[in-house]
Amino acid sequence: MSASGFSSRHLAIVGLGLMGGSLALALRQSAETITGVDPSAATREYALARGIVDHATDDLREGVSQADLVILAAPVTLIAEMLRRRIGSYLRSNTLLLDIGSTKQDICDAMANLPVGIHAIGGHPMTGKENSGVTASDGALYQGRPFVLCPTRRTTPAARLRALSMIEALGAVPIEMEAKRHDQVVAAISHLPYLLSSALVATVAKQGETDDAVWQLAAGGFRDMSRLAGQDIKMMSDILSTNTQAVATLLALFRVQLALLEAMLISHDDQHLAESLKPTREARIKWFERYENGVKK
Amino acid sequence: MSASGFSSRHLAIVGLGLMGGSLALALRQSAETITGVDPSAATREYALARGIVDHATDDLREGVSQADLVILAAPVTLIAEMLRRRIGSYLRSNTLLLDIGSTKQDICDAMANLPVGIHAIGGHPMTGKENSGVTASDGALYQGRPFVLCPTRRTTPAARLRALSMIEALGAVPIEMEAKRHDQVVAAISHLPYLLSSALVATVAKQGETDDAVWQLAAGGFRDMSRLAGQDIKMMSDILSTNTQAVATLLALFRVQLALLEAMLISHDDQHLAESLKPTREARIKWFERYENGVKK
Repeated sequence: MSASGFSSRHLAIVGLGLMGGSLALALRQSAETITGVDPSAATREYALARGIVDHATDDLREGVSQADLVILAAPVTLIAEMLRRRIGSYLRSNTLLLDIGSTKQDICDAMANLPVGIHAIGGHPMTGKENSGVTASDGALYQGRPFVLCPTRRTTPAARLRALSMIEALGAVPIEMEAKRHDQVVAAISHLPYLLSSALVATVAKQGETDDAVWQLAAGGFRDMSRLAGQDIKMMSDILSTNTQAVATLLALFRVQLALLEAMLISHDDQHLAESLKPTREARIKWFERYENGVKK
Repeated sequence: MSASGFSSRHLAIVGLGLMGGSLALALRQSAETITGVDPSAATREYALARGIVDHATDDLREGVSQADLVILAAPVTLIAEMLRRRIGSYLRSNTLLLDIGSTKQDICDAMANLPVGIHAIGGHPMTGKENSGVTASDGALYQGRPFVLCPTRRTTPAARLRALSMIEALGAVPIEMEAKRHDQVVAAISHLPYLLSSALVATVAKQGETDDAVWQLAAGGFRDMSRLAGQDIKMMSDILSTNTQAVATLLALFRVQLALLEAMLISHDDQHLAESLKPTREARIKWFERYENGVKK
């Protein structure tokens, strides 16, 4: 049992990627037994050999049926599919089911339809790494990072407290909010930036077809602005497809802001351009000072 | 005299900011005398006290009249103004005049109208630092970095060779191109990214007015995508105002790329979305492998 009071007799983690493997490492001392569920034999073997999990299987039913806590750490569309199709009937009564998918509305809606007696809550830890996969697992991945919790119709007060104590055991910072609000927030700070980064790289690549100098001269500014375009496409298009409405809304709002800057630029209204850039610059600097890496200083 | 064969009896640097101060440090061994011209008494005193320059003045005529090489390292609109108004009449015949402003068409056009006998060439070193000002001066700032040279009507073959040998003395990598092409390239890799970063922060800030969670949850992706929005506004609006046409063109091209992604997103055409993101992701990864920090590996 950890200092947070969190414990599990049998923890099951579905999906042993970076996130799932890191959860297993971070909760190693709080769980009597950890079972990992993953379709990849190589991943299962690695996780067993390194002691990341005690048992490993590719069978969802077998993996979760004895668990008192199940964490779904699979891609976001797979999580929703598991919730809709099968997993409710595999679980023991009173099991706590938590997911860590990057969008929450779809998943929390699906959780609401689980059998009565299953406790379920949506989660989204705001953390990650450049490298992915079980080999990148890191027990400190969640430390000091925000961990969003979204209540569902299947979240009892006791289930909520258990999820909070697990987050404490991870060393993460819990932030509770409705699923819809979560999805609007991540559309702004994560999904819109990804689309902008990709459209920027596509624009530069078009120019690069006829002038290699764009690639030669691109430096630190382009490096930062293009990094997100290098993210895993399957993961990102999965995430985007479960947050279409919020992302489309943010794109419309973004176009307004960009058009305002463009109008001042084209009309050579330098004074208003500088004036309107000022609060933006200050907002960025204030955020960076308050929340470096997303955690309040 | 340095290994490159570059030397100057009297080097004048106009503008002792990060870029000018670093030039002075890097060319210390190649120049018999260095004079710095700067309007700030504190900057001049600092540069003299640290031995960055041998002489310092706020008088442009006095500073440049004995020089055989003059480097203009002032803000880009000031450089154009100096070229149009006064500097040609202050210089000795056969002086080489080089600028390091961030846009080149305006400046190279102004150089074309200098008196015959003055040799002039446009330059743009692709380097920088988070910190600015003479106190951040760094003799290694130009090492290994691309240094663009743009010919003008006042660039003789001998002037070009002298500029190239100076770039070699800095340890930088010369890249020669027409001013117009340079401005199109930096519009794509630098000025468009700045506007996108600013419009993104403005969009998030609007949302942050009613929901502080956007600031709480913003993390590494937003940090990278918002960094440019924190740049100096005077410097950036100066740069943008001298490159309006190229920037407006790139904005139009960017909108096309963003609209293509948006259409696939809204229509839930996940397969085409993933397919169209693929070459973009590959272009970014290929660039990063070939040119980390803008210099070919």
